[in-house]
Amino acid sequence: MPLKETHIALAHGNGGRYMRELIEDLFVSRLGNAALDTSLDAATVPAMPAGELVVTTDGFTVHPLEFPGGNIGSLAVHGTVNDLAVAGATPVYLTLNAFIEEGIEIALLERLIDAMAKAAANSRVNIIAGDTKVVRRGEADGVYFATTGLGIRPHTLRLGMPEIRAGDQVLVSGTVGDHGAAVLLAREEFGFHGELKSDAGSVLYLAQTLTRIPGLRFMRDPTRGGLATVANEIVRCTGLCMRLNESAIPVSDPVQSVCELLGYDPFYLACEGRLIAVVARDNASQAVDALIAAGAHAALIGEFSEADPQVIVQTELGGERILEELEDDPLPRIC
Amino acid sequence: MPLKETHIALAHGNGGRYMRELIEDLFVSRLGNAALDTSLDAATVPAMPAGELVVTTDGFTVHPLEFPGGNIGSLAVHGTVNDLAVAGATPVYLTLNAFIEEGIEIALLERLIDAMAKAAANSRVNIIAGDTKVVRRGEADGVYFATTGLGIRPHTLRLGMPEIRAGDQVLVSGTVGDHGAAVLLAREEFGFHGELKSDAGSVLYLAQTLTRIPGLRFMRDPTRGGLATVANEIVRCTGLCMRLNESAIPVSDPVQSVCELLGYDPFYLACEGRLIAVVARDNASQAVDALIAAGAHAALIGEFSEADPQVIVQTELGGERILEELEDDPLPRIC
Repeated sequence: MPLKETHIALAHGNGGRYMRELIEDLFVSRLGNAALDTSLDAATVPAMPAGELVVTTDGFTVHPLEFPGGNIGSLAVHGTVNDLAVAGATPVYLTLNAFIEEGIEIALLERLIDAMAKAAANSRVNIIAGDTKVVRRGEADGVYFATTGLGIRPHTLRLGMPEIRAGDQVLVSGTVGDHGAAVLLAREEFGFHGELKSDAGSVLYLAQTLTRIPGLRFMRDPTRGGLATVANEIVRCTGLCMRLNESAIPVSDPVQSVCELLGYDPFYLACEGRLIAVVARDNASQAVDALIAAGAHAALIGEFSEADPQVIVQTELGGERILEELEDDPLPRIC
Repeated sequence: MPLKETHIALAHGNGGRYMRELIEDLFVSRLGNAALDTSLDAATVPAMPAGELVVTTDGFTVHPLEFPGGNIGSLAVHGTVNDLAVAGATPVYLTLNAFIEEGIEIALLERLIDAMAKAAANSRVNIIAGDTKVVRRGEADGVYFATTGLGIRPHTLRLGMPEIRAGDQVLVSGTVGDHGAAVLLAREEFGFHGELKSDAGSVLYLAQTLTRIPGLRFMRDPTRGGLATVANEIVRCTGLCMRLNESAIPVSDPVQSVCELLGYDPFYLACEGRLIAVVARDNASQAVDALIAAGAHAALIGEFSEADPQVIVQTELGGERILEELEDDPLPRIC
């Protein structure tokens, strides 16, 4: 990086020469594309494919900024790409906000933006506008990002919680809780590190695979609050009962061990590269097979009924427990 | 507010019940509109008027959060509305990110979101998607916002620095430096308060007035780094010389006094409700007259020539000084 400085100073946020150089050297050199013009305060969006315009926005505050399997830079791209993907849209453009703390090492920022660039290239999205703010030492914790995504959805695709009917099946695209458990372990305070890796990544290909399956009702990526939180949102919106089969829900051995050791329930831990889908009963096994053919460890994990609107887990021992809506925050700054 | 809590807790960011209630009670009750559906992670953008789609994004970290003339909530709307307006676009939709610090008073947040709602209504924009993150006490300073704006620009409008020619005139829509000076005084550390009020507000109407003037080349709102920074950006991009007439540049008496007392140059202080425009010589007085008829204290302040690319100020005493690009940050967290 041509900047002589090794750490961020307040002058990197002042609108003047240092800020211009930071933006050019750190961001534009990595994220540049034909539609990104830093001499403008607003970008003209190049022509988009036909379809409904879909927009989503997400903030990222994960601590630590780097964790096994990703960092806050890749997360900021994948998180917004995934929100568009599970809405049935093809992500096309992103905008980026960076809130940077005075004193953070520029080499660290470079790694974050490198990962961001790689994630954007893999998801075929371009970043077309951005803004940076620098705040005083102690006023933020390293860096926060926010990304806003524009995508295009076919006019014919109807997805959403209101489409869900009794009898519909629930599936998940892989093991749950990996991101939450990996971030937990990456925090020094626990004093031990395992072989755990975050699942952080793009679900775009899997979501696109599912949109070709008839009977697809709804998709969501279970981030903050995990599977349990998505499940509770659905039952509250639909008025249906969701019954999950505990033994069918994939949880990796290391995640299971960490949860037992530290007293967490993996169903409440965040995923950052999984999707939950609801599919009509007749199409459910076709949907799972399609995900497996696409390389995912997908599984059918439950179904909806007309019973009381709550999330019931049928335990491996044959009993039942209710997955309540989250109250306290077990794990702040997970995403 | 139905929430029993008076201050933000980490649980307000966890994806569960508290977060849902916060979003409903604080945000949706104030910002709700037909296109905002909190059960979705991505919003379908309703049909937009014909024209080019324009997108911009901006982060807001102003300290203190409330200052004479506005707060970070109104600023987060006006800032992005203004970026679209000076690009010649009509703002239509915004998205919102909030990074909220544990422990901040909910009554304060309510005032910020009230101001945001009022600013959005005045600018006729709807907020169609949002995200909140809560970080631990001490990890952010109250609240940061980011907004991303979607606007529509007529296909026929050509604006931008490359349109600027030697002989073109520079105008400003009102006094400069009011926002910077007002925020400066609002900081306790200076120990005195004046009658100063930020100019924070929308320039949309003024920008729309100017887009009807033939010969309009370029508009920009001089925020971080003020008039001097916009001027330097233009000369760097165009390779032209910009000569400003100091006695023509409007500076209010209280801003002038504060600057003399504290050693600031008002030309480097942020405005948040002004625009700088460049207009062909033959149309310049028509443009100023149109702004004055629209209620602005507009003035012609300078012109471009083929001389060396720098910003020269002709002082009131008949001398000259060069307005250099900003190096250090005189005033962090101004917007």
